[in-house]
Amino acid sequence: MSRPGLFDYLLALGDDALVTAQRLGEWYASSPAMEEDIALANIALDQLGAARLLLSYAAEVPDTALPARTGGPLPVAARPLDEDALAYRRDDRQFRNALLTELPHGDFAHVVTRLLLLAAYQVPLYDRLAAADDPRLAAIAAKTRKEVAYHLDHAATWVRRLGDGTAESHGRAQAAVDALWPYTHELFAPLAGGPIDPATLRADWERTVTAVLAEATLARPADGWAPGGGRDGLHTEHLSYLLAEMQSLHRAHPGARW
Amino acid sequence: MSRPGLFDYLLALGDDALVTAQRLGEWYASSPAMEEDIALANIALDQLGAARLLLSYAAEVPDTALPARTGGPLPVAARPLDEDALAYRRDDRQFRNALLTELPHGDFAHVVTRLLLLAAYQVPLYDRLAAADDPRLAAIAAKTRKEVAYHLDHAATWVRRLGDGTAESHGRAQAAVDALWPYTHELFAPLAGGPIDPATLRADWERTVTAVLAEATLARPADGWAPGGGRDGLHTEHLSYLLAEMQSLHRAHPGARW
Repeated sequence: MSRPGLFDYLLALGDDALVTAQRLGEWYASSPAMEEDIALANIALDQLGAARLLLSYAAEVPDTALPARTGGPLPVAARPLDEDALAYRRDDRQFRNALLTELPHGDFAHVVTRLLLLAAYQVPLYDRLAAADDPRLAAIAAKTRKEVAYHLDHAATWVRRLGDGTAESHGRAQAAVDALWPYTHELFAPLAGGPIDPATLRADWERTVTAVLAEATLARPADGWAPGGGRDGLHTEHLSYLLAEMQSLHRAHPGARW
Repeated sequence: MSRPGLFDYLLALGDDALVTAQRLGEWYASSPAMEEDIALANIALDQLGAARLLLSYAAEVPDTALPARTGGPLPVAARPLDEDALAYRRDDRQFRNALLTELPHGDFAHVVTRLLLLAAYQVPLYDRLAAADDPRLAAIAAKTRKEVAYHLDHAATWVRRLGDGTAESHGRAQAAVDALWPYTHELFAPLAGGPIDPATLRADWERTVTAVLAEATLARPADGWAPGGGRDGLHTEHLSYLLAEMQSLHRAHPGARW
């Protein structure tokens, strides 16, 4: 199955998951309890697994789908395309993740709040993709929807606990919500190349997130500044550092199979 | 079940797993392929899960088992004891992991070689503990033995591939074996407090490791310098940095349940 923009669409979803996995991996073993370390590491692994499936599919989409608008085709050295070439050989301008996923993590409240905001978007997305008219993407989504439902549940539990906890935990959670909120708008920017346009998911997302915030006694921020560009390959400097870390070994030994 | 030294014994096994998980977690997303990132992250999670079970058990062993020789009892603030207190509130002098596990990772050859040397020890250890006269430890071992068998298999596959690969990969693998070998002796230092004394595992370990090295066309180093002390709480400076990273959040918010 191929349609104009499918490659971009798969990259957007796959890069959200890949960058999220990387950020969660950085946080590894820094959470307040061993149980939570294990939970976050499992979540990072789920997102990494989803990224691998999505990028593997993207690698098989015909080259003609490669968009000229984001720096042109991948370098010759990155061919033949596979998920590793897509993960390790693209420059930041060729990544399509939403900016929300690439922001550096702050405190633990920040980690779980970002996960809430992202998973509340991934749940309806993969729910609907699981029924989409693209068997391969539907199969990936059927696996991923169960995982992100757990991520949402886990993040929501923490945001409620922090928001409805001590004055300090409430303050940290509110600060995280306020800081991350502007970046959520980009999740719903139109993405035409796939079966489900994320722009149609906003009402679902809003319902989920506002319910959790209310239970957490946290204020929903006003909508206003809405930074974007990630879906078009225009990223913050934070992604460059993240990629430098993630890609250093692969780039030092291009094509190495060991 | 309690016997003199059981607390120490459980710490030794649990700390080996905890520090290994932490070192593998640092390597997260730095391996040459997405598939390998996922495999190493799964292995780190297994080790972290084993550590949690072992430290949870250790936390329930009566206080009288706390050895005076390694800095005395845990600080009052760390009570009541649970696995989090043991993971996050001990100083380096109170950790009992073998030095092998705390050495900073080098290249990828180093990562998989260390895993081979450790897993070749953990496999017979947990195999035999699974039949031990301590139901709780036997149950932990029955779960862990399956996991470490996979770790050994995975590491051995890589060491064979690197050793029997290119000149560069062979050289890196041999350098890793040579650098790590002296630290393997400590694994077999007598540990009296548990049902299986690791000193009895040496022949098993030697057979496994020398077979893999031979298949990998790697030389088995001569035995000689045999640094130790980890089982007595005498560690390299590398453990201090590892613990600073791992414990910073928990210590900044002592006892926080959020």
